Amino acid sequence: MYRHRYQFRVRYRDVDYLGVVYYSRYLEFFEAARDEMMRALGMPYSEFERNGYAMPVVEAHCVYQKSAHFDELLTIISRISAPPSARLKINYEIIRENEETVLASGYTVHAFINKAGKAVRPPHFFRQLLQARLG
Amino acid sequence: MYRHRYQFRVRYRDVDYLGVVYYSRYLEFFEAARDEMMRALGMPYSEFERNGYAMPVVEAHCVYQKSAHFDELLTIISRISAPPSARLKINYEIIRENEETVLASGYTVHAFINKAGKAVRPPHFFRQLLQARLG
Amino acid sequence: MYRHRYQFRVRYRDVDYLGVVYYSRYLEFFEAARDEMMRALGMPYSEFERNGYAMPVVEAHCVYQKSAHFDELLTIISRISAPPSARLKINYEIIRENEETVLASGYTVHAFINKAGKAVRPPHFFRQLLQARLG
Amino acid sequence: MYRHRYQFRVRYRDVDYLGVVYYSRYLEFFEAARDEMMRALGMPYSEFERNGYAMPVVEAHCVYQKSAHFDELLTIISRISAPPSARLKINYEIIRENEETVLASGYTVHAFINKAGKAVRPPHFFRQLLQARLG
Repeated sequence: MYRHRYQFRVRYRDVDYLGVVYYSRYLEFFEAARDEMMRALGMPYSEFERNGYAMPVVEAHCVYQKSAHFDELLTIISRISAPPSARLKINYEIIRENEETVLASGYTVHAFINKAGKAVRPPHFFRQLLQARLG
Repeated sequence: MYRHRYQFRVRYRDVDYLGVVYYSRYLEFFEAARDEMMRALGMPYSEFERNGYAMPVVEAHCVYQKSAHFDELLTIISRISAPPSARLKINYEIIRENEETVLASGYTVHAFINKAGKAVRPPHFFRQLLQARLG
Repeated sequence: MYRHRYQFRVRYRDVDYLGVVYYSRYLEFFEAARDEMMRALGMPYSEFERNGYAMPVVEAHCVYQKSAHFDELLTIISRISAPPSARLKINYEIIRENEETVLASGYTVHAFINKAGKAVRPPHFFRQLLQARLG
Repeated sequence: MYRHRYQFRVRYRDVDYLGVVYYSRYLEFFEAARDEMMRALGMPYSEFERNGYAMPVVEAHCVYQKSAHFDELLTIISRISAPPSARLKINYEIIRENEETVLASGYTVHAFINKAGKAVRPPHFFRQLLQARLG
């Protein structure tokens, strides 16, 4: 299993009238965590795109367990459990720094497409990078 | 089953570099559809809040099937199939006007809380409004 | 002077912890008003793009006078006072339906670029559409 | 003059179809820079609020000079030149790391209100913190 941690701070733009993070913002947080996970893997998503590929989201899910508030420092733990086949699944857990409680958890499922927008198998260079980490 | 249709237009702010709607924006679209469904039920969410209640999202799911683009006129069909118990589930389908193809579908699950943030049963006035429609 | 009215409703995603619309959202509202103004002019921005042009924002300004709240039905009055030269300026005023009070006012200034990203003069077809309205 | 630097990365959620940061997102970046400037001053905005005050934006301005793209690492230089009277003005410049070119610049003007929403003079503790830095 490949695991990556990404830390960020909740901004005023993220919170709603109840003082808690608005529900769609979690998907934006997941994206930032995913971006940093790709960078840590050695293949920033911007480079992945320059290589002629994209990894569009085909499914997203989030369970909201505890509220997150303005100015809190949160951590997203992203996990990939299986090498990508036609699809890649990434799991996310959001916790407060130095706490165990999970505030929210979810996943995204990604397809792979080439520049023409055609569905393709995950590019070889990406499968190799992931396999090196998945062991 | 209670069913509601909400029409809206995709804005530039909604689309990403691939020219398609960014994935978290669908949850914002679901919220707008939900707001208008509540209004059509006779209980706008703003009034629901003034009555001392909130309906926070505890789970959200979206499957992205076909791309939606800038300036397209889309319709969200929201559906409630069962009266709320501790939770309320709302299903959504996004289609293009005058087309059958589903671009995206998903659901949200809501809890009910009072002003103190305590989980409560759905308020009587809301159960009545829904039961009148659910038959 | 060319003047256009666009009506919309404030969503939960737009409001912050103070219960008022978050400040960057006004620029998103301006965009929606601008989109509908272009459509009313006979040249939706999507068609403008298909013709090989874009109209990027080079300056934006907003003055926040009164608060706007969740679920309010607002109107944006967009105004163009002068035909576009190298730049086009659009003014916006946000009011509540059936009220005179201005909640927020602002403007955007736009350049014109072609597909290669080069600054160009406003396309002839667009100057003609505007001149017909500006008289 | 008090000056603060804040570094961040452009996310996919921030860019539009032209591949450049959507114009309202700059105001969100300014907010993040402002949040971190307040923290560096010794008064995080969340604490400012807990002390019973808020600092709503009454005016915002942005000039977009050069494009910012997905995955770029940017720096915002925030500056306060004068102690707050009834209003506080903050200037922002966005640059690429290790480059001089300004991509965008702007300002926000803030009022001070208390818990009741009444306009007040800037709280003493905040004036003191700023004066210590402004010299």
